[in-house]
Amino acid sequence: MTTYWFEHAWLGGETADTDVLITVDGERITSLETGVPHPPADSVQLHGVTVPSFANGHSHAFQRALRGRTHERRGSFWTWRELMYRAAERLDPDGYHRLARAVFAEMVRAGFGVVGEFHYLHHRPDGTPYADANAMGEAVIAAAADAGIRLTVLDTLYLHGGLTTAGSEPYVPVGPKQQRFSDGSVWAWVERARSLKLAHDSATVNVGGAIHSVRTVDPMAMRVAAEWSHELEAVLHVHVSEQPAENEACQDQFSWSPVELLRREDVLGPRTTLIHATHVDADDIATVADTGAAVCLCPTTERDLADGIGPGRAFDDAGVPLCIGSDSHAVIDPFEEIRAVEMNERVTSNERTVFRADQLLGIGTANGYAALGWPDGGTIAVGSLADFTTIRLDSIRTAGSTGESVLATAAFAAAAEDVNHVVIAGRTVVENGRHLDVDVAPALAEAIDAVVE
Amino acid sequence: MTTYWFEHAWLGGETADTDVLITVDGERITSLETGVPHPPADSVQLHGVTVPSFANGHSHAFQRALRGRTHERRGSFWTWRELMYRAAERLDPDGYHRLARAVFAEMVRAGFGVVGEFHYLHHRPDGTPYADANAMGEAVIAAAADAGIRLTVLDTLYLHGGLTTAGSEPYVPVGPKQQRFSDGSVWAWVERARSLKLAHDSATVNVGGAIHSVRTVDPMAMRVAAEWSHELEAVLHVHVSEQPAENEACQDQFSWSPVELLRREDVLGPRTTLIHATHVDADDIATVADTGAAVCLCPTTERDLADGIGPGRAFDDAGVPLCIGSDSHAVIDPFEEIRAVEMNERVTSNERTVFRADQLLGIGTANGYAALGWPDGGTIAVGSLADFTTIRLDSIRTAGSTGESVLATAAFAAAAEDVNHVVIAGRTVVENGRHLDVDVAPALAEAIDAVVE
Repeated sequence: MTTYWFEHAWLGGETADTDVLITVDGERITSLETGVPHPPADSVQLHGVTVPSFANGHSHAFQRALRGRTHERRGSFWTWRELMYRAAERLDPDGYHRLARAVFAEMVRAGFGVVGEFHYLHHRPDGTPYADANAMGEAVIAAAADAGIRLTVLDTLYLHGGLTTAGSEPYVPVGPKQQRFSDGSVWAWVERARSLKLAHDSATVNVGGAIHSVRTVDPMAMRVAAEWSHELEAVLHVHVSEQPAENEACQDQFSWSPVELLRREDVLGPRTTLIHATHVDADDIATVADTGAAVCLCPTTERDLADGIGPGRAFDDAGVPLCIGSDSHAVIDPFEEIRAVEMNERVTSNERTVFRADQLLGIGTANGYAALGWPDGGTIAVGSLADFTTIRLDSIRTAGSTGESVLATAAFAAAAEDVNHVVIAGRTVVENGRHLDVDVAPALAEAIDAVVE
Repeated sequence: MTTYWFEHAWLGGETADTDVLITVDGERITSLETGVPHPPADSVQLHGVTVPSFANGHSHAFQRALRGRTHERRGSFWTWRELMYRAAERLDPDGYHRLARAVFAEMVRAGFGVVGEFHYLHHRPDGTPYADANAMGEAVIAAAADAGIRLTVLDTLYLHGGLTTAGSEPYVPVGPKQQRFSDGSVWAWVERARSLKLAHDSATVNVGGAIHSVRTVDPMAMRVAAEWSHELEAVLHVHVSEQPAENEACQDQFSWSPVELLRREDVLGPRTTLIHATHVDADDIATVADTGAAVCLCPTTERDLADGIGPGRAFDDAGVPLCIGSDSHAVIDPFEEIRAVEMNERVTSNERTVFRADQLLGIGTANGYAALGWPDGGTIAVGSLADFTTIRLDSIRTAGSTGESVLATAAFAAAAEDVNHVVIAGRTVVENGRHLDVDVAPALAEAIDAVVE
């Protein structure tokens, strides 16, 4: 049992509480008291403001290797994708483990307590399975354990190379660079993903499923994947409408938008999270709301990849829970993600404070934990998972904040660098701004050096 | 004379050079050699990538006190302005000096080498002058000297309380909270600003002029201010078209857009920089280009204040030099500003790399120096001002960069925190990430505490 005293803590209200004392037993919070100005001598005393750890709802860990390497010349999402395929080709289980370990450690250092790894690097580059068909998934799981982060593996179904234009066969076969993503059939995926889940679900690992997108998974297969998720009570994530071209091809082939196609194949429900949902219309938004599905915005990636600005406010107004992800890892900074959710609304609406600081923090924490299958995480409360992150209020960025402005300082002024202390599953992983197990920058440099050209 | 060796340095090309040796004599660079792998023993050796120091083209230093304090409830630029007026009321020359000193030190720590302070807090809160009519301007100049930053004071003309709607008198008088901004007449401003310039222009201080906006300066007065700038060869800055309401009122009263009104009153020319220019049309852009004026974008403020996204690419395509400013200081991070110039284009055009890394660095450095009246700053070249900033390539954010990706890492991945060394006017101000003269965070906390409610 450990007792923690927080100078300020966000307990879910519109403002922060002060002088908060909690007890952690194992990996849960077992008591909580506010208004304790004199912390017990044996408590861990954390100055600054403590919030539930952030949830990184959408990650492709290996894409961290592309940071700073895709900006040479005019292009689009689609030219970026070619560079991304080339990085994906060069990974084996060992290299993937080393890279994911460093990237997950970067996340923890930035204040994330859980990550949803949208995992599709299943097989050898030529598409044949490794001796252990789940060698790559297990590399991800080992990496998360090394980095001390809670993990949801979103084991991804990926069958086709893309949607064609109307009139021909709807899908083209996977290309040479996509072969390692595909299990060949939805039934092979069902078995492989099930065995990963049965072998690895634990107190800090949750295996869920993912449908890569309507571009790569046909309607029958997505229906099977949805049934898989119901049977195993697993979360199910799907990339959707990141680019207008996907919408056009889907409309041409199936006469529905991607969201409507997913609904018709029974993919949408309270276990489902739609990733991006950038180019959706009012009907799509109403459909998502009706089904109880969530939406994960990835603002720093969506701007980097020139996707556009998704309708965060419209989803929120419709009652759709929003969460955030750092996706391609152009940036790994939960503050930057939640701030961008609000700033994107400001530049498009000319209104300020569309989302208050506490609402942005909820988008960054509890909503993400729920979307990743950890419904009792992302809050500082009795019975919650003991995952929390302390933010300095005396850094150059945050200096000058006082009582009332503590939450807004966290949401609108802090940066990853200001994270001082992180506890995940009751275990201290970051102390005085330092990851206790991984020397993050050298680990990143070494792992990236092994995979870039 | 000091010799510096840079592992990587940006000398203006599309990629960085390596092994660069320069000599600094006094406040200028007097020699430069590339391809020097073995630095002389007595040289200062700077690892990472060195770029010309960034230019903060637009600053209201006192608004740093508002960071984290304006996000409580739904609002707009106009509700934010009321909060800003309240902060402005509480400053006297001493408090202003302390606050500006800390904020300028924050800027230097973030890699800025020069700041343009758009200065309109001239008089006592009731509008009467201080015993020394330039006491507030001198406080700004002293603050910059303390912080070691090069300074352009943009002494601001502000005469009216706002534009009315058509049919009545065009301008309302300054309100109680605007009195301290006004000199009462353009002739009083001419004299006061001239005396500030004659007394303080120096090797590191340049006094220019500013027209606050078409909302607060009438056409006759703006023409006088333009003549003042021609006579004294002083730069002249103007807020323009930050909000649609300004355009509407200007069109109603004068039948011209703000840009066109400025052109007709002879305000636009190569010495002029337009701040924001967010809501302009194709005719306005062509007008600006014809006159040789520059545009200063303030992306982190323009998103914070819900101004919108300005047409950076269209200005650039028309040949208008762009620079950046941190304006309200919701964020002080030159990397975040230049990156936002590009990211704003990506989310609105679905194209990537509208501006390359070297183009963004030019926007952040040489263009800003020129707009602030330092045409021989913002480059690393023989004869240039010795203002340069070294960025770590071994931080958590920048780890993994190599040869070709050095400039893109600086432009797309680095943050203020990664600035390791700053030299301004030949003098080292930041070493090992620490400001040598100001303990920045405590200085900010103390100065802000004195002015917030």
